Amino acid sequence: MGLHTYFQSLNDLERIIRCPGKFKFEEHSVSAHSWKVVQYAKTLADIEEQHGVQIDWKKLYEITSSHDYGEIFIGDIKTPVKHFSLELRAMLQQVEEGMVAHFIAEHIPEDLKPIFRRQLREGKDDSVEGRILEVADKLDQVYEAFSELKRGNTEKEFVTMYRQALVKIKQIRLHGVDYFLERILPDLVSEGTQCPIDLRQITDEALAM
Amino acid sequence: MGLHTYFQSLNDLERIIRCPGKFKFEEHSVSAHSWKVVQYAKTLADIEEQHGVQIDWKKLYEITSSHDYGEIFIGDIKTPVKHFSLELRAMLQQVEEGMVAHFIAEHIPEDLKPIFRRQLREGKDDSVEGRILEVADKLDQVYEAFSELKRGNTEKEFVTMYRQALVKIKQIRLHGVDYFLERILPDLVSEGTQCPIDLRQITDEALAM
Amino acid sequence: MGLHTYFQSLNDLERIIRCPGKFKFEEHSVSAHSWKVVQYAKTLADIEEQHGVQIDWKKLYEITSSHDYGEIFIGDIKTPVKHFSLELRAMLQQVEEGMVAHFIAEHIPEDLKPIFRRQLREGKDDSVEGRILEVADKLDQVYEAFSELKRGNTEKEFVTMYRQALVKIKQIRLHGVDYFLERILPDLVSEGTQCPIDLRQITDEALAM
Amino acid sequence: MGLHTYFQSLNDLERIIRCPGKFKFEEHSVSAHSWKVVQYAKTLADIEEQHGVQIDWKKLYEITSSHDYGEIFIGDIKTPVKHFSLELRAMLQQVEEGMVAHFIAEHIPEDLKPIFRRQLREGKDDSVEGRILEVADKLDQVYEAFSELKRGNTEKEFVTMYRQALVKIKQIRLHGVDYFLERILPDLVSEGTQCPIDLRQITDEALAM
Amino acid sequence: MGLHTYFQSLNDLERIIRCPGKFKFEEHSVSAHSWKVVQYAKTLADIEEQHGVQIDWKKLYEITSSHDYGEIFIGDIKTPVKHFSLELRAMLQQVEEGMVAHFIAEHIPEDLKPIFRRQLREGKDDSVEGRILEVADKLDQVYEAFSELKRGNTEKEFVTMYRQALVKIKQIRLHGVDYFLERILPDLVSEGTQCPIDLRQITDEALAM
Amino acid sequence: MGLHTYFQSLNDLERIIRCPGKFKFEEHSVSAHSWKVVQYAKTLADIEEQHGVQIDWKKLYEITSSHDYGEIFIGDIKTPVKHFSLELRAMLQQVEEGMVAHFIAEHIPEDLKPIFRRQLREGKDDSVEGRILEVADKLDQVYEAFSELKRGNTEKEFVTMYRQALVKIKQIRLHGVDYFLERILPDLVSEGTQCPIDLRQITDEALAM
Repeated sequence: MGLHTYFQSLNDLERIIRCPGKFKFEEHSVSAHSWKVVQYAKTLADIEEQHGVQIDWKKLYEITSSHDYGEIFIGDIKTPVKHFSLELRAMLQQVEEGMVAHFIAEHIPEDLKPIFRRQLREGKDDSVEGRILEVADKLDQVYEAFSELKRGNTEKEFVTMYRQALVKIKQIRLHGVDYFLERILPDLVSEGTQCPIDLRQITDEALAM
Repeated sequence: MGLHTYFQSLNDLERIIRCPGKFKFEEHSVSAHSWKVVQYAKTLADIEEQHGVQIDWKKLYEITSSHDYGEIFIGDIKTPVKHFSLELRAMLQQVEEGMVAHFIAEHIPEDLKPIFRRQLREGKDDSVEGRILEVADKLDQVYEAFSELKRGNTEKEFVTMYRQALVKIKQIRLHGVDYFLERILPDLVSEGTQCPIDLRQITDEALAM
Repeated sequence: MGLHTYFQSLNDLERIIRCPGKFKFEEHSVSAHSWKVVQYAKTLADIEEQHGVQIDWKKLYEITSSHDYGEIFIGDIKTPVKHFSLELRAMLQQVEEGMVAHFIAEHIPEDLKPIFRRQLREGKDDSVEGRILEVADKLDQVYEAFSELKRGNTEKEFVTMYRQALVKIKQIRLHGVDYFLERILPDLVSEGTQCPIDLRQITDEALAM
Repeated sequence: MGLHTYFQSLNDLERIIRCPGKFKFEEHSVSAHSWKVVQYAKTLADIEEQHGVQIDWKKLYEITSSHDYGEIFIGDIKTPVKHFSLELRAMLQQVEEGMVAHFIAEHIPEDLKPIFRRQLREGKDDSVEGRILEVADKLDQVYEAFSELKRGNTEKEFVTMYRQALVKIKQIRLHGVDYFLERILPDLVSEGTQCPIDLRQITDEALAM
Repeated sequence: MGLHTYFQSLNDLERIIRCPGKFKFEEHSVSAHSWKVVQYAKTLADIEEQHGVQIDWKKLYEITSSHDYGEIFIGDIKTPVKHFSLELRAMLQQVEEGMVAHFIAEHIPEDLKPIFRRQLREGKDDSVEGRILEVADKLDQVYEAFSELKRGNTEKEFVTMYRQALVKIKQIRLHGVDYFLERILPDLVSEGTQCPIDLRQITDEALAM
Repeated sequence: MGLHTYFQSLNDLERIIRCPGKFKFEEHSVSAHSWKVVQYAKTLADIEEQHGVQIDWKKLYEITSSHDYGEIFIGDIKTPVKHFSLELRAMLQQVEEGMVAHFIAEHIPEDLKPIFRRQLREGKDDSVEGRILEVADKLDQVYEAFSELKRGNTEKEFVTMYRQALVKIKQIRLHGVDYFLERILPDLVSEGTQCPIDLRQITDEALAM
């Protein structure tokens, strides 16, 4: 039908719940996650700018806000599935891209098609904006896992999620990563001392990896 | 750890919601769905027995109750994804089977391993039990879609789900299918006359396919 | 109307919540419970078969899958009510049976009536299948209570539920009970060491009763 | 322990859902229902006073606010169960009263025991306050059912609930009943003209009974 | 339209959630809160009567049951907003009163208007009934906060809510306050010894203020 | 504490529900709404660029993503309250700004303070970015109301919301507004022909105002 179909489709992401199947005290929709990623990315980009790095804000806007739009078509596939084999991962990404391409072909008006194709591309490339998106996405996993752990959730999945997100963040070259490790993470760890699990040790191990 | 891990894992299916992303008045968990499939299958098998067909109740028990257990590992992947290509479908099934096999290898005690391998196999083969499972699974889609449509849900997805489930059921050779088409479906259609959409027409079209 | 009414009624059990009134981190519907009972019973029956006991799988299928169907009519009456007096318990069971009988008389087609009457009978007799159902039903109480306790639920009701289910299980003659006590329960207790309450002590006391 | 146990028990009624099992667009807890009954009763009593009837406000306060407190112990038992036989109904009421009496004996301090025994008695006697409670309780059923019906709920249970509540209200001698029938119900019926079901006809039939 | 509009509006308070924005294990609607305030107030009034204080039960009925009715119009405005400045607080109260007055003018029949104006006035004056309402309202904050804290909620907001409610209660002259401090609070504190936070210390500090 | 407090606070907006008190088939959190506003604004800005208008993407990013951040402090105050008087509206905005300023002063590190002060300012000025935000915010009201109305919600509030959002959008000078009125709204209206209310007439009236 046109943009009406696109605008209306956004609502679907409010009903896709992250980390399906595992017990959690608080559920997060993909749309709420997407908004938080947009917010983290903004502050990460501010920190880069403070260090003299130039940011393409239009690109950052496009890739952060749309980075999980494809989940409308394939859902929040469980992380272990994605990581099962490189081959499957590639194929799933291919399917997602195929379905997005099909949606654009069918529903987006001619004059906006090139714009949507650019916006809905995979954004996690090696540009500074791509790296900011990667860190922002992982940051939300850190906070999602942390919130569960500090309330006493005993699912191992959240320890794994917390650890792996930290390991990934640490590997990315960004002033915002240094800032996070030095000035944000210590506050988080110190707030987590009430956790039944030993958050400090898990954090130290992840950072030592 | 052993059967404790297996028993506890069953709880995960209560938190995997069918048909994620689409608006619905009522959500169904995979475990509730599984129970209903067990119930439909029982009655379908009763009908076969009435016609002199012999039922392997042990097999039927195993394949109906466990038919969606693999979703613990891969989640409720959206139907359009599964149908994107035969290649992807095959690969996803391979992943699911791989993860189930891995779970059995790691968690199920030696003496029970062969039993679990048999139980958690794909059950929809061409045996009478396999066909009963196929029909029971589709029957639940009919009822899920019908319940939404009669309450005024306007998502096209549920019209599609209803139609495709009917088309599939119709193709399966089973006395229970005849029974359903002649003595159950008419009641359902007549109850659906209040629907905003024309359920009778959709039904007639599906059956004429 | 016929089987349509019956099939549609199954959905009601998705909306009856177990243990109403008490605070819980996670709610369980009667249909999700029923599915888990079916699953536990299958493994318990497998264990009996390994010990050479013969299982009537058709009977087991019927009594496990339908064991709480009657709650569609009377709801999940609080356990203390059921246990108030033998007289009341008998009367409630009589009401439930009366309502089931009335439902069959009104809605089930003539030729299926005898089958439904057999299936919807009380299944917890002294046969091996009846004992498996009894244990499977209690096993789910063990897991329901355990999940709450390990997450920090402080309602005494769940301690009571856990203890009484264990006491009941222990009294039933079944190879699966030995298996549970020796090879499953220890894993569960050891996972529960993080509980604010002393699960090991409660377990030991229950088993010593 | 004393009043602490009593005060804390009130929270349980927030988790007991009325009309369990049936599909509804909106759930109502027993505590929310109780508050609305208190409010309706206040206005009904105001109307009586306007006609010169004397109201015992203390009694009205006690019986309206506590009229469903006993459900903490027995839950919201399904209406058809209550109506199954006079014998069962009497026995269930006896159980509820027994459990309330037991709670008072165990938890309420000596000096407050007589007060609690009076407050938690059955309030629907033939006094003006008892009749106001009866009408207020039924009024909430009218509104609960009406809200579902006007949103397109097709469960017959709500038609029955609406009709039976009207029939009961009509039989009670109270100026507030005349007021309701003449000056409130017509507005409700006229708002309900959009319902898929014919609310006016059901209303007329109920009033003609 | 008349009383129909008023009766129907009561339902809105079931959908206004107290303490919006903060994580909580259990949500409370304004209507459930209102019912609990009615219950606490009844017992507080009973205690006053035992000490020979005369209670105007009609007034108490009116002010407790309706004390949050105005939130239908303005919602549950966050406490920090209300406390931002005396000027804002006065203005918000003015708005609430204005909207209530407007509602009465528009929807309540002439003959009931004076009654509704009296009932929906601010009830927390210095009369014994006004003081009972104030204590009952704070008591529910004590229980709301306590329930979260004992389940491991780490939001500071609930510590603050608990402390401030206690401080306020302590300042009000009422036999029921003495009763609460001497015979109810100790039970609550002793039940709270499992809390991760030190409830006894917070309680002692609040009472020493 | 620093950015940790800020990052963690974002989660609060997932628990603030828009349009509190009114019945709705689907709830929307402020964070989900915020994400959709970001998405609409992106497309609106794309349309401006196609017409040669220059967009400050950094500014647009900042004002759209943060436009409701202040609701963390004051909640989603009901629209009628905001519109009660210009004086109150000004004062509420003053409170919100005061609380945001206080939060920045207390929690944001020195070097980021100026950036946060700029980002969290009111963004709906007369610049093209400000106008895009205004339209995007109203667009979400259009879609929120439309989704309820097409599913049969009969609350007048949603008719009002739909109409007022359209009236407001129409008044704003933007190529995206023309695009919406000519190429999006007709699709929406034509999809809404199944509504019980006459959406076309309401739309025509709103546009003729």
